[in-house]
Amino acid sequence: MKVRGKSYRTLWVGADGWSVEIIDQTRLPAEFHVLRLTTLAEVAHAIRSMQLRGAPLIGVAAAYGLCLALRDDPSDSALATARETLLATRPTAVNLRWALERMETELRPLAPAARLSVAYRAAGAMADADVAICERIGCFGEPLLRDALERKDGNAPVQVLTHCNAGWLATIDWGTALAPVYRVHDAGLPVHVWVDETRPRNQGYLTAWELAQHGVPHTVIVDNAGGLLMQQGKVDLCLVGTDRTTRAGNVANKIGTYLKALAAKDCGVPFYAAVPSPSIDWSVREASEIPIEERDVREVHDYPGMPAHNPAFDVTPARLVTGLITERGVCDASEAGLLELFPEKR
Amino acid sequence: MKVRGKSYRTLWVGADGWSVEIIDQTRLPAEFHVLRLTTLAEVAHAIRSMQLRGAPLIGVAAAYGLCLALRDDPSDSALATARETLLATRPTAVNLRWALERMETELRPLAPAARLSVAYRAAGAMADADVAICERIGCFGEPLLRDALERKDGNAPVQVLTHCNAGWLATIDWGTALAPVYRVHDAGLPVHVWVDETRPRNQGYLTAWELAQHGVPHTVIVDNAGGLLMQQGKVDLCLVGTDRTTRAGNVANKIGTYLKALAAKDCGVPFYAAVPSPSIDWSVREASEIPIEERDVREVHDYPGMPAHNPAFDVTPARLVTGLITERGVCDASEAGLLELFPEKR
Repeated sequence: MKVRGKSYRTLWVGADGWSVEIIDQTRLPAEFHVLRLTTLAEVAHAIRSMQLRGAPLIGVAAAYGLCLALRDDPSDSALATARETLLATRPTAVNLRWALERMETELRPLAPAARLSVAYRAAGAMADADVAICERIGCFGEPLLRDALERKDGNAPVQVLTHCNAGWLATIDWGTALAPVYRVHDAGLPVHVWVDETRPRNQGYLTAWELAQHGVPHTVIVDNAGGLLMQQGKVDLCLVGTDRTTRAGNVANKIGTYLKALAAKDCGVPFYAAVPSPSIDWSVREASEIPIEERDVREVHDYPGMPAHNPAFDVTPARLVTGLITERGVCDASEAGLLELFPEKR
Repeated sequence: MKVRGKSYRTLWVGADGWSVEIIDQTRLPAEFHVLRLTTLAEVAHAIRSMQLRGAPLIGVAAAYGLCLALRDDPSDSALATARETLLATRPTAVNLRWALERMETELRPLAPAARLSVAYRAAGAMADADVAICERIGCFGEPLLRDALERKDGNAPVQVLTHCNAGWLATIDWGTALAPVYRVHDAGLPVHVWVDETRPRNQGYLTAWELAQHGVPHTVIVDNAGGLLMQQGKVDLCLVGTDRTTRAGNVANKIGTYLKALAAKDCGVPFYAAVPSPSIDWSVREASEIPIEERDVREVHDYPGMPAHNPAFDVTPARLVTGLITERGVCDASEAGLLELFPEKR
């Protein structure tokens, strides 16, 4: 997507052919700054400290983290250590595990000396695949917004509410939940996005920033406000991303998503999650099987001596989710729905 | 209640016998500062800028605002102007209207010269009545916490979740939602409070501050987190205050309350509102009849050019409310329930 008119991805290989460059998301929206990562440790730090974040993006970043590790040492043991280091950075997003397992499947059979070039190729392919997945999520999500628009009077925009950032900054490009929004906007149709600020890390500001760069009308609200807006009929559709969706369609996403899904259900507002297949954890069904990351309480406040607790995700039960938008189409948030689109997972 | 061991109310008449002193709540929790108000304009500013807040407290503050106005000019027209000025400060809390109407009923029949002393006496009585109301809400709410405690294992504390500040800082003393918590704690029973930070104004920090002053265990969470905690069984009871409750039991309270009530319903957690009768608007039934204050968007963020929207309240439908704790007892959140306790409003 474009930043001040110039096309960017969120992560790319530097001009030197090996270093990894990213947009430092901890400096947005105040400052657009490109960060150069040259070691496994720097990639692990970037993921942990959320210089890059978003389940799809951290999956690809982890793949590149392996590449940087292999530059130093392509041995089996170094590969295993790098995998453990990267896996430990963030526990909830399943994309990390998915990406690392795919990389290892490709690399482990190879002689150490042959690994590095294959690793960069595989990581690059994963980045490109992510872009393609997001583009298709955009295509499949677009009709949902168009349908909502058709039910509205005159030139009133379709009103979307989103939580956290599931835009292109959370992926390599396009985004997941915001991909349909960009497509509808690019088609010249009126769309407006209510942006939850998303405490404690305020990823809503990332959403506001990228929507502003692309010219999509939007309004930032506190996380408390979405329920009222839905009661008032000011939201036509909720669209969120996911960090891990179980095979039964339970959607782990940024803390607070569950509250918005409850309000959507209560107010009759459709609630969709954009779910790229690498975010699906086919190995678990129940919400309780998803580990919930707890982050530093200093993200919540910095008053000395005031106790705090900072869980980073919650799980929205499938029964509250109208549908899942995947790269193969939209389905029910259920095992049956997902398996219809992904029959190879039966 | 006590601040560093010394008893305070949130508002009192100064040593000069006429000025009004308050705890400046915009400086808490960083700094405990007493502010002296000497004019109607200063009281109106204090209410608008939330140097004092909380429905019961702004009712009493408005009564004292009338007193200060009458010092300058006790005429009918000055009285009417003062009432309009104070009424316009904040639209949602009905206590403001309630207090001003009561004051006017007492003052208008009197000769202007006789009004001032009566006004101070009436305002003082209103403050004392608020303390008594809150104390009784504490008494009636206490058994709810004791019952929850009895259902728990061993010495585990009863886990209360509250939103915004409905503690003694929101009233003259004791608080509404927190009054039962203080009683249970003072009785030596284990209680722990999950404190929603309550964006955008972070009144949760006021709650954390007053709980800390009193030694009640508590933990601050972002507003997004309460749903997860309820899913995880970590909340036994939600207790909130109200700015206006309709005669049908719909509870207007700080924005985001509705989302917590939805989660409580979904997770089988009892959800109670502490409702002093001056916060009941007997003239309206429906949620839609309550005006929702919109405040300056700079409360949400200060990034230039980033659009924002800042509604300050929402209305929790009576169907989501387990019960209302009033100074006359606990009742169903319904017209029938309220009228049983307040038969004079039939």
